[in-house]
Amino acid sequence: MQALRDRLARITDLNHAAAILEWDQETYMPEGAEESRARQVATLRSFAHELLTDDVTSRLLESATPESALDQDLVRVTRKDVEKATRVPSELIAKMAIASGRSKGAWQKARATNAYAKFAPHLATIVDLTIQHAEALGYQETPYDALLDQYEEGMTTAEVTRVFSDLRDRLIPVVKTIAAAPVISDAAVHGNFPHDAQWAFGIEVAKQLGYNFHCGRQDISAHPFSTAFSITDVRITTRVDPTFFSPSFFGTLHEAGHAMYEQGIDMALEGTPLADGTSLGIHESQSRLWENLIGRSRPFWQHYFLHAKKAFPDALGGVDLETFYRSANTVEPSLIRVEADEVTYNLHIMLRFELEQDLISGKISVNDLPREWNDRMENWLGIRPTTDSDGVLQDIHWSLGAIGYFPTYALGNLMSTQLFDAAKRAIPNLDALTASGDFSDLLQWLRTHVHQHGRRKSSNQILMDATGSGLSADSWMQYVQTKFGDLYGF
Amino acid sequence: MQALRDRLARITDLNHAAAILEWDQETYMPEGAEESRARQVATLRSFAHELLTDDVTSRLLESATPESALDQDLVRVTRKDVEKATRVPSELIAKMAIASGRSKGAWQKARATNAYAKFAPHLATIVDLTIQHAEALGYQETPYDALLDQYEEGMTTAEVTRVFSDLRDRLIPVVKTIAAAPVISDAAVHGNFPHDAQWAFGIEVAKQLGYNFHCGRQDISAHPFSTAFSITDVRITTRVDPTFFSPSFFGTLHEAGHAMYEQGIDMALEGTPLADGTSLGIHESQSRLWENLIGRSRPFWQHYFLHAKKAFPDALGGVDLETFYRSANTVEPSLIRVEADEVTYNLHIMLRFELEQDLISGKISVNDLPREWNDRMENWLGIRPTTDSDGVLQDIHWSLGAIGYFPTYALGNLMSTQLFDAAKRAIPNLDALTASGDFSDLLQWLRTHVHQHGRRKSSNQILMDATGSGLSADSWMQYVQTKFGDLYGF
Repeated sequence: MQALRDRLARITDLNHAAAILEWDQETYMPEGAEESRARQVATLRSFAHELLTDDVTSRLLESATPESALDQDLVRVTRKDVEKATRVPSELIAKMAIASGRSKGAWQKARATNAYAKFAPHLATIVDLTIQHAEALGYQETPYDALLDQYEEGMTTAEVTRVFSDLRDRLIPVVKTIAAAPVISDAAVHGNFPHDAQWAFGIEVAKQLGYNFHCGRQDISAHPFSTAFSITDVRITTRVDPTFFSPSFFGTLHEAGHAMYEQGIDMALEGTPLADGTSLGIHESQSRLWENLIGRSRPFWQHYFLHAKKAFPDALGGVDLETFYRSANTVEPSLIRVEADEVTYNLHIMLRFELEQDLISGKISVNDLPREWNDRMENWLGIRPTTDSDGVLQDIHWSLGAIGYFPTYALGNLMSTQLFDAAKRAIPNLDALTASGDFSDLLQWLRTHVHQHGRRKSSNQILMDATGSGLSADSWMQYVQTKFGDLYGF
Repeated sequence: MQALRDRLARITDLNHAAAILEWDQETYMPEGAEESRARQVATLRSFAHELLTDDVTSRLLESATPESALDQDLVRVTRKDVEKATRVPSELIAKMAIASGRSKGAWQKARATNAYAKFAPHLATIVDLTIQHAEALGYQETPYDALLDQYEEGMTTAEVTRVFSDLRDRLIPVVKTIAAAPVISDAAVHGNFPHDAQWAFGIEVAKQLGYNFHCGRQDISAHPFSTAFSITDVRITTRVDPTFFSPSFFGTLHEAGHAMYEQGIDMALEGTPLADGTSLGIHESQSRLWENLIGRSRPFWQHYFLHAKKAFPDALGGVDLETFYRSANTVEPSLIRVEADEVTYNLHIMLRFELEQDLISGKISVNDLPREWNDRMENWLGIRPTTDSDGVLQDIHWSLGAIGYFPTYALGNLMSTQLFDAAKRAIPNLDALTASGDFSDLLQWLRTHVHQHGRRKSSNQILMDATGSGLSADSWMQYVQTKFGDLYGF
């Protein structure tokens, strides 16, 4: 058992080292290093893959005698990892790492210069390798099932389609009602919000929520993300628009939500493959909970608005709390997913979910993608991007080879309200605590019911144990009805 | 041969990944991650060590058929690396990596709080492991020979002692003469030198010397260093004192000199173990050449002084070129090695060389060290540190386990003038070019005669081929006589 633990610790170290190299690539790496960095990440990832899937690990898994419940989980989860990993040849893993390293750089340049054509050949390679990857992983109904399962274990294309259809049927009438209601101005979140003041304010609030900067930090990157190199080193990134408060501030709360999940994992799991989020849906539930259910709530701003006024006297000097709260919660179809309001956000996800399926099935090609993106944006949200940088090039995910990932964002939204409802039942004065800037009870509840378990519990187990029921859109729809009914008067 | 190349590329990737983790540890890593980072670096280093020393590499080395002169060098140098590496058990390598990861963090804290006692147990472990390391490496006369040889292949304790004695005999009269001469004021380099202006000025000049920021970058760290993750990713760090021009500016030129060496290596060597400096002495010759022979020269400031006046109007507005040049070249015994003048610098090195030998031989203990340091500083340089932070805690090297490293700094000084003399013979108008801010001929000469070869040529070969003679103190002593004779009138 100790030999197995040691071997898994080494594999975990290799994967975390690769994550550090990827973080550096997004934040500080000089441009000229693209090629060598892609090779280095590929070497680490393929090495980790080889070690996980070689005979030594298999023999250790067979012969190990678990000495605790933790050991049992370690063996169980690792067996599943090995089983999945052995389906994919290490040459394919290395090819994908090299391709994504290169295409990430190409995406950054293409996005900066609105030059989709320069990214397209990289994306074509990614799609081609992703199809090979899905075939290697295996699936029951459709290759897309295999891709989904990587990020949300046990989830199928059919189930997501079913949940999304249900959600859509109930959401579209709400969006229509809001569209017919008087417009709420978002003027208060636009104005003079200096870069340094936003940076400091975001970090200050993230600290107060419970993100531990002794074991974390924030940097600038083109696309905000969070990443963990150990339970004691969990980092976030943001980008700052000095004329617009929302993207950086709510982005910081979002990434801090992810980071607090990883920071809350039981230290007994440190250095093992169990010290990770159990699924991207659960991960996203944590980021959305802090970003939206807390960060965009009235009680939150009852506490923080005076702080914000002090931090941004020019923009907020003449603004009152209610105006600011409403301004931070306007619903309006917009081009950029990460800046979308809570109500229309899931439509952005459904668009990507459809496009990904069409790309993988070959129904559309990489060259069709900008037009398809723009057409569907127009159909779904009634607006058409004027540049690819604001359209098909806006997200980093495809450049990383992360196809099948997007649906987990919407699943996370649904899970966030389910968990938040359960937390409110356990902490009846939660709103009052939020209004006093005290988040410790909520964080403690999340640590107990979600964070500490890492991968020891499945996504579905977390939901069942914490809330008493499985995935459903009911809670989220009720939240939207209540909050936006209040704002838009329905 | 291709299989050997692939294997060595993987090993190189692992070592470079470890270097990236170490760079991050010095620049951005949150404090809480110390323990996990030490483990991760240890894992990567020990993997690289295992791969280098296992049967597969040995068999490939035996059976490989070199297809070019480059292949021949690759096989020759790798054989020597393997031979050296197999002498050290991988457990010891891992122990040293863990110990140095921990002691680095402890050193940083101890230095910041002037608390040597908190660093001492870490240093004791380092010394103990270093002795084991020397025994494992093997030596002819003394364990210190084995340590020296790691950084300057072929160099012995006896030879360094001989060269240093010779140097001392010729240097001490010069220092005495200067001490008796009228004091030159260094007031011009002290004053209001704002952080951001220093940062920008240093980067601007480093660019003009030829340090390529497309394949490099500068960050802040407690102890400045340069590090390479590939020929296309070579980074430097600095620290900035907003009341003192010299440390950051000359430090930047120094690290840029190291970095230009690594950036100038032939791209045909990329991803191989040959793409590295051939010895620390040669490496230091490059940093000192740009820092001192160029950066502290009169022709250099004939070009740059007007730029400096623009960048630092408050501090330099009323200063003239000659006053500034003299101010940047004062000779005065000082506490901090990296801020020492050119003339006394080598005395700092000789002090460390003696203390290291005494620590390794057991003649003094780690607990004696602060007193021994301070006593010898007083004997050698006539000044006594009032805090350990300005004394025994000033350098990062011992915390990293780099004992035997310091002598290469003085060897680098000697080599720098030898190479510079040869460059001046090849470029007769070098001073005029420098005075016009054109460094391309000098950089080209260094690339041709030093940089491009990487580890294909030994330190001694580089010197012989480039200058026509081996290591000697003559050139450096003549440089000191001429430059400081002019300044101090002897």
